[in-house]
Amino acid sequence: MSDAENIYDVVIIGGGPGGLSAAQYASRAKLKTVVLDKSATAGALAYTGHIENYPGLVDPVSGKELLDIFRNQALKFGAEYVEAQVVGVNLAGEVKEVFTMTGSYKGRAVIIATGSMGRKAAIKGEAEFLGRGVSYCAVCDAAFYKDKTVCVIGNSEEAIKEAGYLSRFAGTVYLISPTKKLKAEDHPALEAPNLKVLPENTVTAIEGTDSVDKVKLADAAKNESELPLDGVFVYMHGSKPVVDYLYGAVELTETECIPVNTMMETATPGVFAAGDVTCTEVRQVVIAAANGCLAALSAEKYIHHRTKSRAQWG
Amino acid sequence: MSDAENIYDVVIIGGGPGGLSAAQYASRAKLKTVVLDKSATAGALAYTGHIENYPGLVDPVSGKELLDIFRNQALKFGAEYVEAQVVGVNLAGEVKEVFTMTGSYKGRAVIIATGSMGRKAAIKGEAEFLGRGVSYCAVCDAAFYKDKTVCVIGNSEEAIKEAGYLSRFAGTVYLISPTKKLKAEDHPALEAPNLKVLPENTVTAIEGTDSVDKVKLADAAKNESELPLDGVFVYMHGSKPVVDYLYGAVELTETECIPVNTMMETATPGVFAAGDVTCTEVRQVVIAAANGCLAALSAEKYIHHRTKSRAQWG
Repeated sequence: MSDAENIYDVVIIGGGPGGLSAAQYASRAKLKTVVLDKSATAGALAYTGHIENYPGLVDPVSGKELLDIFRNQALKFGAEYVEAQVVGVNLAGEVKEVFTMTGSYKGRAVIIATGSMGRKAAIKGEAEFLGRGVSYCAVCDAAFYKDKTVCVIGNSEEAIKEAGYLSRFAGTVYLISPTKKLKAEDHPALEAPNLKVLPENTVTAIEGTDSVDKVKLADAAKNESELPLDGVFVYMHGSKPVVDYLYGAVELTETECIPVNTMMETATPGVFAAGDVTCTEVRQVVIAAANGCLAALSAEKYIHHRTKSRAQWG
Repeated sequence: MSDAENIYDVVIIGGGPGGLSAAQYASRAKLKTVVLDKSATAGALAYTGHIENYPGLVDPVSGKELLDIFRNQALKFGAEYVEAQVVGVNLAGEVKEVFTMTGSYKGRAVIIATGSMGRKAAIKGEAEFLGRGVSYCAVCDAAFYKDKTVCVIGNSEEAIKEAGYLSRFAGTVYLISPTKKLKAEDHPALEAPNLKVLPENTVTAIEGTDSVDKVKLADAAKNESELPLDGVFVYMHGSKPVVDYLYGAVELTETECIPVNTMMETATPGVFAAGDVTCTEVRQVVIAAANGCLAALSAEKYIHHRTKSRAQWG
């Protein structure tokens, strides 16, 4: 094979909904496309137990099932899928290179779709019950807890807001703060009558059988107690875009997300980004999928020089 | 019933993918939601014969089938659906009003999702074969015409671009221009060896049996001929956002699309827009669905005053 034959049109980093949607649109537009995915069973969507609000679902599915559907569509249109962890990139030239543990991939365009990850599950039982009572997204999962008892773990404004959102669904919401004071004490969400703040409490364990039954708490004096409940929403740290393997090859904001314009172009020509790795306020599968569609169409235009000027997307 | 009970949280104008996705997210967020739809069987998606590239589809479906899935999801989450043509709006106050032929609907927030419409199908056979060989979107349908013969009708830069895009799929692409000169004579797309321009020709009829078999042509001297082919892509006029019933109640651009920010907010507080009625470059179901999701979340924030400031979405 000549070297030219080894060059992909589009190398996509990440096999979540953003990357797989991009792969689908790119390969259907006849671009030679490869998806490099750390693992088909990792990532925020793969860890989601139950999804009912992705538009187009006839019945609720698990995150893994929805990913399988996305992946099979991309494969059907001709995209290649490789399970490989990306460890570095060279995005400067016309032909870009993406390095994995098992080899490197050259491409005319690169789409970054590595998503974002919460901190490592740190509470005992958190990983075990993820998708079975443990959630990181009130907008996604609040509807499953109508009139039930849930807790939010955290003291940030985001945690308070999410507790407020949950208070409109759940019977009772406990906001369990590790600190005495919340970071936004006068937030209107705190006025909800069914929202109770438990300051200076640490969740030491999440327990249950099939799904979550209770959490164990320790207060400032190390007194232990138990709180029976149905759902645990963890907001201890905002989740962070996965960008470690880029080593500064793409412009990031202070919060380490990738800024893109409305056509998913990054500041680097030929490099696009989609989904939760971008500076987005809303983390939903349909948003990542739409981003992937746009990124692929932009890559297609970039490769075939069909764009009149970048300014029109500004 | 008191008057307050007649006020919806969200009134959605339009029952395409943008409006129905918005309805799904709004109703799942416990907002009292109504969708006002001119007709469940009209609109750009309803007229689409065959869709395979919406992310999440296990098998290809018709546009009508996909709309049914979207609509059923919205209904399942509690949205109301009313077939009614909107004829006017009053969006100025805190409670907005939407007028239909059969009554008016009050809402705290309004989401505009009326899509865009091509000119009326004007060529003999065009309406009859829509979705069965006649298409208005090369990105959507090019993949169905691998190695086949297609024509593009038009002389605009958009028509030339779409002909260039199709030339990478189809065996032969005829660009049938009503004028002697194209509007972008030196466009690189015209260099494709399998793209043939037929200047000063008018398509007088599109004919076929199950699907398109041929078009009838008339040249400048009124000589008639026939061209056997499999697909007809019509780009005679760009399609226009459907905004007639707004009568200036929402800010429009010169091209009469609704400008929105990244959270689908229009310039009018409490009024949001989603899908092809906005100033979008890309008309795809997944984009409209993502827009609908964002519009609903923005409406939810607007109604519950959860937004810190509008600036953050700017």
